[in-house]
Amino acid sequence: MTDKQHWLPVTRENIQTAHSMIRPYIYETPVLTSKTLNSLASTPQPAEALIGTPFEGQQPACPKIKFFFKCENFQRIGAFKVRGAFHSILRVIKTKGEEEAVALAASTLSIPAYIIMPSISIPSKIEATKGYGGKVVFSGLTSEQREEVMRKVQEETGAILIHPYDHPDTIIGQGTAGLELDTQVNKLVSENPELSVRETEDGKGCGLDAVITPVGGGGLNSGTATVFADPRADGRKIHVFGAEPSFQGADDARRGLKAGVRIPEVKSLTIADGLRVPIGEIAFSILSDPAKSRGVFSVTEEQIKSAMRLVVERMKIVIEPSAAVPLAVCLYNEEFRRIVEQEGGEAGWNIGVIFSGGNTTIDAMSGLFSAS
Amino acid sequence: MTDKQHWLPVTRENIQTAHSMIRPYIYETPVLTSKTLNSLASTPQPAEALIGTPFEGQQPACPKIKFFFKCENFQRIGAFKVRGAFHSILRVIKTKGEEEAVALAASTLSIPAYIIMPSISIPSKIEATKGYGGKVVFSGLTSEQREEVMRKVQEETGAILIHPYDHPDTIIGQGTAGLELDTQVNKLVSENPELSVRETEDGKGCGLDAVITPVGGGGLNSGTATVFADPRADGRKIHVFGAEPSFQGADDARRGLKAGVRIPEVKSLTIADGLRVPIGEIAFSILSDPAKSRGVFSVTEEQIKSAMRLVVERMKIVIEPSAAVPLAVCLYNEEFRRIVEQEGGEAGWNIGVIFSGGNTTIDAMSGLFSAS
Repeated sequence: MTDKQHWLPVTRENIQTAHSMIRPYIYETPVLTSKTLNSLASTPQPAEALIGTPFEGQQPACPKIKFFFKCENFQRIGAFKVRGAFHSILRVIKTKGEEEAVALAASTLSIPAYIIMPSISIPSKIEATKGYGGKVVFSGLTSEQREEVMRKVQEETGAILIHPYDHPDTIIGQGTAGLELDTQVNKLVSENPELSVRETEDGKGCGLDAVITPVGGGGLNSGTATVFADPRADGRKIHVFGAEPSFQGADDARRGLKAGVRIPEVKSLTIADGLRVPIGEIAFSILSDPAKSRGVFSVTEEQIKSAMRLVVERMKIVIEPSAAVPLAVCLYNEEFRRIVEQEGGEAGWNIGVIFSGGNTTIDAMSGLFSAS
Repeated sequence: MTDKQHWLPVTRENIQTAHSMIRPYIYETPVLTSKTLNSLASTPQPAEALIGTPFEGQQPACPKIKFFFKCENFQRIGAFKVRGAFHSILRVIKTKGEEEAVALAASTLSIPAYIIMPSISIPSKIEATKGYGGKVVFSGLTSEQREEVMRKVQEETGAILIHPYDHPDTIIGQGTAGLELDTQVNKLVSENPELSVRETEDGKGCGLDAVITPVGGGGLNSGTATVFADPRADGRKIHVFGAEPSFQGADDARRGLKAGVRIPEVKSLTIADGLRVPIGEIAFSILSDPAKSRGVFSVTEEQIKSAMRLVVERMKIVIEPSAAVPLAVCLYNEEFRRIVEQEGGEAGWNIGVIFSGGNTTIDAMSGLFSAS
C-alpha cells in the first residue's frame, strides 16, 4: 500500500482514473431491474410492521421506487472488494518505480499474499481465499486483535499492507462500482424510459435519484458518496445512503455519525458477516460531510433475511446476507421510506442498490433460514 | 389451442414468425458465460468417477468446452414455458378471427385459466400459479389421469386447451429460446472472440457448435432441434442434444429413441420435477430425425445436484434442478464428453446450454441438499 506521502485525495476524478487502471482486471458487472421488487417497495408496509417502532400508529409511508441493482455478486471473487485491491496493488506498482514494477508484474502469479481473517470467518470464505493462493493467518474478532496480527506478519515477512478499507487507494477503488452504476443506469433508462420513475423533456428516462450501499469498513459507501458529491450538470443531486445491520451494535457508523464521533470497536455476530467491522477513519470523515452522505440506516436480522430471500427467490440471483442490507432498508426501514415518499413525491425515486457480493453456499443459506 | 386444420408445420421460419409475435410479451433473457465452469468441463473426470460405468478402466475423456448459458430462469414466470404459452394464445386469437380476438384482448386480464397440475406438485409452484390468477385443478401423476381431468374441465367450462408441450404452437413458441440464443452468441463472440473456442478467418469468434436442453415433454428440445436443423451458410452443422434424469426411468425419451418407439408413461419422482412427464408424440417424431437431434443423454440425481450447486455457488444464479440436467450431462456423462472430445478436437466446442427455469426456493434447496 502506498505511503502517506503518496496518498491520493479521494475525489471523483481520482475514482475515474482508478477505473481506467483497473478495468482490464475486473468485470463490468450488469445492472438488473425487477418489477416484482419495484412493486413490493412501492407498497406501504402493513400497520403491524410498525408496532414497537417510533412510527407505531402512524400511516405507513407509500414511496414510489424503481430499483437498479448493481450486481457485484457477479464480480471476480464474487464481491466488489477486488476493485479496491487491484487499485491498491496497481498504485504500489506505480509509486515504487518502473523497475520494481516490472519485477512485480513478471511475478504476479507468485506474489505471496498473507490474508488476515477472524478465526470465526465462514468456512467457504476461508476456503475460497486459500483457493486463490492466499496464505490465511487467523486473528481475533476486534480490529485491535487484527492489527496486532497484521503488524506481526509484516515484521516477519516484510509484506506490504493492503488495508481492506481504511486507505484512500482502497476507497478510490471501491468507488468505481458507483461510477459504473451511474453510467450504466443513464444508458439503460435512455434506451428504456419505462425503467425510470419519470422522463426527461426529450422523452428519455431520468437517471438515478439515490444510491444505497452496505457499510462495513465504509470503503464502498464513502467511495460511492464521493462519486456523487457534486450535483449534476442539470443541478440535480444524487443522494447517497448507507445501510447497516442493527444486531448487537453493528450499526456503529450510524450511531457514530449521530454522535459526531467514530465508534472504533464492534463486537457483533450479525448474519451480515461482511459488516461486522467498525467503519474506518477516512470513510467516517467522508460520511460526516452532509454534502456527500445522507446518513446510514439500519435493519434487523429478520429484515435482512427477508430481503435476501426475495432476491434469491424472485430475482433468481445469489447474494450474501451483507449484500441484502441496503434492499432491506428500502423495503423495511420506515424512516428511510418516509424520506423517499417526501422527497420523491408523486413520481418517486430511481434508487441504485449495490449488491456488494455473493459469497455464500447452499449449506450456509440452509443454516441461515432453518434457524428461523 | 388451434384446431388440427390450422396446425402450423414446425419449421425454423415459423419459429422466427412466432418470435416476432411474442417478443412484446417476453424478456430477451441474457446469455452468461463462466470461466470456472469452462475450466471444470474441460478437465477430465477422475478415473474413480467411471467405476461401474461402461467406461471403467478407460482414459477419461478430455473435451474442450466453452459454455453459453441462456438464462430462461430470468424469464417471466421464471421459465421458458411462457414462450409457448404466449404463442399458443396469440395463435388462438389470430385464427379465431378479429372480432373475437379484440374481445379476448380487451379482457386479457380476466380470461379465466384452469391449470391442471399433479397433486404432488411442489407447493411454491402451486402458490405461484395461483398468484398469477390461475385456477388450479389437481390431477394424478400419469398423463392418462391428467388428460381425464382436462377433458372434464373442458366439458364443464368450455375452456380452450393450451397443451403444455405436445402441440405445434407450443413447440414453435419454445423454439424461440434457441433462436435467441443463436443470435445472442453470434453477437457476443463477434465482440469478444476470447469467449469462443476458436476464431474465424476475420478474427471474430466462431458461434455455437452444439446446444443442449432438458427433455421433459420435449417442446423446448424439439423446438431447438428445429431451429438448428439446417447447416449454416458456411456448411457448419450445429448439433442439438437432449438431457434427462435417469432416476426411476425418467429417461423415457432416451430409451424410446433407442428402441424406436415412444414410451408413453413415466412414473418417476426425480428431483428434476419439471422432467417427470413422458415426451410428447410430436416432439418424439422430431427428435427421431437424426438430422435434427443427436440424441438424449442421462445423468443421476447426484450429478444433477452437483451441477446445480456449481451454478448457484459459482455463477451466483438460481436454477431449478430440471435446468441443471444439461450442464450435468456436459460435466459428468462420459459418453457425451467423448463425442465432444472426438468431434471438437483440439479447439473444442462452444456449447449453448439452456437454463430452462429458476422456480425453486431456499427451503426447497435446503431440503434437496440436506437429504444427501
